[in-house]
Amino acid sequence: MWEILILVVLSALAYKITDGLIPNLKDLFVKAGLYGVDLCKTNKNKIPEAIGVVSGCIFLVTSFIFIPIVFGNGLMDTQHFPHNEFAELLAGLLSICCMLLLGFADDVLDLRWRYKLLLPTVASLPLLVVYFVNFNSTTFVVPLPLRYWFGVSVNIGFLYYIYMGMLAVFCTNAINILAGINGLEVGQSVVIALSIVVFNIIELRGDQYKAHTFSLHIMIPYLATTLALLKHNWYPSKVFVGDTFCYVSGMTFAVVAILSHFSKTVLLFFLPQIINFLYSVPQLFHIIPCPRHRLPKYSAETDLLQASRTLIAKKDINFLSKLILQILTILHLVERTEDEESITINNMTLINLFLIKLGPMSEVRLTSKLMAFQVFCTCVAFVIRYPLASYFYDS
Amino acid sequence: MWEILILVVLSALAYKITDGLIPNLKDLFVKAGLYGVDLCKTNKNKIPEAIGVVSGCIFLVTSFIFIPIVFGNGLMDTQHFPHNEFAELLAGLLSICCMLLLGFADDVLDLRWRYKLLLPTVASLPLLVVYFVNFNSTTFVVPLPLRYWFGVSVNIGFLYYIYMGMLAVFCTNAINILAGINGLEVGQSVVIALSIVVFNIIELRGDQYKAHTFSLHIMIPYLATTLALLKHNWYPSKVFVGDTFCYVSGMTFAVVAILSHFSKTVLLFFLPQIINFLYSVPQLFHIIPCPRHRLPKYSAETDLLQASRTLIAKKDINFLSKLILQILTILHLVERTEDEESITINNMTLINLFLIKLGPMSEVRLTSKLMAFQVFCTCVAFVIRYPLASYFYDS
Repeated sequence: MWEILILVVLSALAYKITDGLIPNLKDLFVKAGLYGVDLCKTNKNKIPEAIGVVSGCIFLVTSFIFIPIVFGNGLMDTQHFPHNEFAELLAGLLSICCMLLLGFADDVLDLRWRYKLLLPTVASLPLLVVYFVNFNSTTFVVPLPLRYWFGVSVNIGFLYYIYMGMLAVFCTNAINILAGINGLEVGQSVVIALSIVVFNIIELRGDQYKAHTFSLHIMIPYLATTLALLKHNWYPSKVFVGDTFCYVSGMTFAVVAILSHFSKTVLLFFLPQIINFLYSVPQLFHIIPCPRHRLPKYSAETDLLQASRTLIAKKDINFLSKLILQILTILHLVERTEDEESITINNMTLINLFLIKLGPMSEVRLTSKLMAFQVFCTCVAFVIRYPLASYFYDS
Repeated sequence: MWEILILVVLSALAYKITDGLIPNLKDLFVKAGLYGVDLCKTNKNKIPEAIGVVSGCIFLVTSFIFIPIVFGNGLMDTQHFPHNEFAELLAGLLSICCMLLLGFADDVLDLRWRYKLLLPTVASLPLLVVYFVNFNSTTFVVPLPLRYWFGVSVNIGFLYYIYMGMLAVFCTNAINILAGINGLEVGQSVVIALSIVVFNIIELRGDQYKAHTFSLHIMIPYLATTLALLKHNWYPSKVFVGDTFCYVSGMTFAVVAILSHFSKTVLLFFLPQIINFLYSVPQLFHIIPCPRHRLPKYSAETDLLQASRTLIAKKDINFLSKLILQILTILHLVERTEDEESITINNMTLINLFLIKLGPMSEVRLTSKLMAFQVFCTCVAFVIRYPLASYFYDS
């Protein structure tokens, strides 16, 4: 456990360095044309974009420096050197580094949507490869109620790799679409990271303690650098984090989920992101018209945010979109107004849903509410993971 | 050997993809503000910069895809799985990926000089760490004539890591300072890569065949993607490669040099770069005044390049700069003109030296001459490495 202590000290140092570096590098980003204007503010200051690359780099460097500390001990006893774990850590960092590069390239070059799905797949290759070489275990444990039909476990073979690749794509993009107000991307990532750390600590006493130690080795420096980023990205944001940050965060969570074998638990921590994704599906797949931005609408007079809306011409409504709209109306999940020619509904994101249900509010309050929801979902996840899971799996 | 054949096929595919992708992505780079104007041309077209990131990414992806092919076989026999080699390959790719990221960040953000020295050091960390964990052999074999004093081998301990770190810094920057005319950075890298490949093939019959196979696994996809880049970067350049390319190339050479244990031979292949570096030292360290750019001067009338010059006020000349100027004059390595108040000399780069010795010439001819010199140095390197080395080392 001593190496975890060293890692905590290293990570504290990483926090300080990230915190100091971000204000120093801000002008460099603006000068390079990497900046945006905050749409929910009255001032039109140039806010540096893609600052996630700074925290990401410090996160990687901290991990590099940590390698000889954790594996230097194993060196003494070359017979029992944990080659597997070493290769896993390297592959994990390689995937994260790759995602950092591709995310930054996306921020700079503004790549098209199809690349956004392709990039995480490419970056997860080292991960899948090391999984193939080290474990190649493609077996799912079947929940108790279903064992009558499927047996104790099912080997899904190649499909398992598809599942893992899709997990990486999902994690990276899910954070990216629950975004747009100050501090939300970083805030939710901090809550997820903390949830994973707590879960790891609980499981350190179990027989999978090695996998959970591995996860801690990655999550602790990630958490430290992300907290430093949050300090500058929290309302009112002095920096924006860019796709870079969302990609790196998603990939980091995918790495620990896959290599430490708790992908189902990580998905539980992603509950708000899953809800937001499912809620967004009709617009993401253009079944219902989707504007370029679905950010909440800022009112300069009141300094409050309210749900943004989209107008659907009645003649464009087909059977599927009509059905979806009806179901969502019955479930009270959209606010609609109608005239003779068109229907107006709120844009279907979790952020807008909060604004509909709780009324217009300030940006910082909205972020806090969404954070609180993320924390609530973590609690739900722990309830599902611990008391409930025993009904479905042998403990 | 069958895996090398597969790698060659994969690399041929990588060549095709890189070749097709570069023209497609050009506009994206220009739109993002990543472009430059060719100073040695009359037209002032916007030429996309930092295109090395494209070939670098394809190079990495090819290597990722190759991993299961080369290590999938070892999977069958888990008892003898070559964990060391697997970790080495991952660490090598991690260092290269890191350098790609930092190089691209440098191109986008235009970082300061001190970072240019720091970045390769950071990126070489995974490499040094895997070296520490896997080998930790810090012993130099002493040349025969010196064994009387030093013994057969000398263990230099921690200094060996300093040496390796500096090798990475040197390789990355040495290519970067022998640059500035169309096709030169990429051309020299192709010659060096080809030299390493030939050396590896020769050594495949030796007892270090494993190390040389490892080197081929990295060099073949690197060579393929770099050749595709050269096609677009050769005179007249349709794309510029940026620091990204120089950094990635230097790190790739450093990776094979360190992990395959032939750093001295790689340094021999860097002969023109070493000459250029030593010749540049007085200006790089500002002992002799150094202008912002030391590129050759382009004459639009003749379409020829001639050596660029720098003016030194006589009152600024101190003892050291006077001494250096005198030595270089005696050795006919500078062309100087003098009046009462100042001395004018050519800027001290290998490119300008060629122009002084061979007279003004066209850009494409100059690049070709420098390429020919690089090839000549490779031949010298092979003579030193094979017939001559037997005088200094037991074969």
